[in-house]
Amino acid sequence: MMASQANLAVIRMGDVVREEASRRGVEITDEAVGGMAHREREIHGPDIWARRTVERAPSDRIVIDGIRSLDEVACFRETFGDALSVVAVHASPHTRYRRIAKRQRRDDVITEEELRVRDRRELRWGLGEVIALSDYLIVNEGTLEDFREATRRVLREVFG
Amino acid sequence: MMASQANLAVIRMGDVVREEASRRGVEITDEAVGGMAHREREIHGPDIWARRTVERAPSDRIVIDGIRSLDEVACFRETFGDALSVVAVHASPHTRYRRIAKRQRRDDVITEEELRVRDRRELRWGLGEVIALSDYLIVNEGTLEDFREATRRVLREVFG
Repeated sequence: MMASQANLAVIRMGDVVREEASRRGVEITDEAVGGMAHREREIHGPDIWARRTVERAPSDRIVIDGIRSLDEVACFRETFGDALSVVAVHASPHTRYRRIAKRQRRDDVITEEELRVRDRRELRWGLGEVIALSDYLIVNEGTLEDFREATRRVLREVFG
Repeated sequence: MMASQANLAVIRMGDVVREEASRRGVEITDEAVGGMAHREREIHGPDIWARRTVERAPSDRIVIDGIRSLDEVACFRETFGDALSVVAVHASPHTRYRRIAKRQRRDDVITEEELRVRDRRELRWGLGEVIALSDYLIVNEGTLEDFREATRRVLREVFG
C-alpha cells in the first residue's frame, strides 16, 4: 500500500503463484496451492517463482513482495544487478503472537506453540537466510504508524 | 564487554569449543577447530555445544554468545525456560563489508563476493532461522555508540 502511494508497482509473488494455480484449475486452498508451488520448485528449480515474477516486472522501480529463499534473491540479483535491495521486516515471535491473538476469532485460535511450529515450517525454504543477508531490516515492534514511517524511510533510501 | 559492565557473566560458545579443542590437543586454527566442532555435532547431535555451554552456566543471569542454530536455542529454552531471550544483531552485507575493508591490512583483503560466499557457508547451521525467530533484533547500521546504546537498552529490558 505504501509502495503504491509512492507510485511504485508492487508484484506479490503469492499472486504469481495463485494466478498460475487458478490457470491450471488448482483449488485455491493453502494446501493445494502450496503443493503446486512446491512441485514446480522441484521440477523447474528453487527459483522458478522468481523467474516467473521477473517476467512481469515492467522496470526496476518495483517492489516484489514474498521472497522466500536466497535462490530467489540470486535470480533477482542476476536480473536487477546493483539496483536490487532486499528489505526484511522482523517482529519477535511473541509480538507476532500478540497481534494474531488480537485479530483472531474465538473459534480460530492458534497457540504460541502452534505459531512456533508454523514458523519453523515456513522457514524451510531459507527465509531466515534472506533476512540474515538483507540490505535493510525494519524492526516492527512498535505501532503501525512507527512501521509506516520506517517503511517510508527505506523506500526513500532505495528509490531516492 | 557491555554485559560484563552490567555484572553479567558472559559465556562464549566459541571459547567452549576452543577449550575442548585445546584439551584434545587439536591445533588452534579455524579449520581444525571447526572440523572438530562439526564432527562432535555429527556424533553427539546438533545441540552438543549448547549442552556443554549449559554445564558452565552459573545461573540464568548470563549472556551466551555465539548461538548458531534453532537446535541450540531449543536446548537453552529447555534449560532456562521463559528466562531465555534470544538477541540477534544485524548489519547489511554492504555495511559489514565496509567495516571489514576498513580494518583490513592490505595483504589480507577479502572481496565483497568472498564475504558473500563465507556468509552463506556460515549460515548453513541455521543462524538465519535464529535471527528470524529472535526475541530482540538490534540493527547495527550506525556508529559504535549507537550500537552500545541499543545493546544497553536490550540488556535492561531482558535483565531488568
